[in-house]
Amino acid sequence: MSDTHSLDALVQALRRLPGVGVRSAQRMAFHLLQHDREGALQLARALDAATSRMRHCARCHTFTEQEICATCADPRRDASQLAVVETPADQAALERTAAFNGLYFVLMGRLSPLDGIGPSQIGLQKLLERATDGTVREVILATNFTAEGEATAHVIGQALRAQGLAVTRLARGVPAGSELEYVDLGTIAHALADRR
Amino acid sequence: MSDTHSLDALVQALRRLPGVGVRSAQRMAFHLLQHDREGALQLARALDAATSRMRHCARCHTFTEQEICATCADPRRDASQLAVVETPADQAALERTAAFNGLYFVLMGRLSPLDGIGPSQIGLQKLLERATDGTVREVILATNFTAEGEATAHVIGQALRAQGLAVTRLARGVPAGSELEYVDLGTIAHALADRR
Repeated sequence: MSDTHSLDALVQALRRLPGVGVRSAQRMAFHLLQHDREGALQLARALDAATSRMRHCARCHTFTEQEICATCADPRRDASQLAVVETPADQAALERTAAFNGLYFVLMGRLSPLDGIGPSQIGLQKLLERATDGTVREVILATNFTAEGEATAHVIGQALRAQGLAVTRLARGVPAGSELEYVDLGTIAHALADRR
Repeated sequence: MSDTHSLDALVQALRRLPGVGVRSAQRMAFHLLQHDREGALQLARALDAATSRMRHCARCHTFTEQEICATCADPRRDASQLAVVETPADQAALERTAAFNGLYFVLMGRLSPLDGIGPSQIGLQKLLERATDGTVREVILATNFTAEGEATAHVIGQALRAQGLAVTRLARGVPAGSELEYVDLGTIAHALADRR
């Protein structure tokens, strides 16, 4: 129906969002047009602003509007420790613990050969340059404990150790607050092997 | 963090979409900025175009870019039958059946007193004017078979019958392809009461 072209185009555009199928996209479009046109315009402006202003930090590769992100530019951070994470959300999770005061390198992804994401797509060369700046003493691999995250940590760890850097990995073990009865076997096995 | 202001604003704007919480919004923003900036700009343009171009059909109240929507303007439709539906998605579901050739009135909502949505918010007065144009012979109430949809049908039906119009409701009964064993009691009771 040609008299709803701009509505159809909006539904198609919303479907490009991750996790949004055609029904969700239709519901979103209906909601915005019927109940929240101001929200629609706000979203349009936010999309324009973010795509034009957000870029990657020259040091850690995370999103920032500056040349160097606020964390990398903070002189109170311990520059001798560098945590390697997959995404800004993972970095935010580490920050919430308030247990780490070092700097970060954000891969903005993970190794996934099947999706064509190899070492160069996650900025391995850039990480090697960053980690061998003479200040970094320890690189903490904080990629996810999924198959892809583990593979990513393995490849990065090998490359960094070849440069003579101290490389550690977040501890595997039983999550805080867990009852052993309900913890999966693999986790308990790791906790046994890494007992201290 | 002031160096990610436009990213934070994008996450906030995405959260206004129905069904999108803070985690989903962050994942969407990350996906758009890291992997699909073209999609982000396309979505921004689609939002602008849809909000500026889409309006309500003067006859049936659905979304259209014209004064009168394509369905209402189609001379091959039977103007003596008027189906009342809650949303354009419901209208599309009826159209897919190819079993109805009449016209529509789209309420763009349903009665929901708790949310402050009364008869005037769903355009009851406009529906009464539309249904009493002298051409409409039968009004088919095709609101959903939910509590709110039933209440909406009840209120609209009363108002239309007071105008002397023939008012019908979509049949309740056992869905096509069902085994009785697995159909809920209320549906079977209705199918028994409305047997033919």
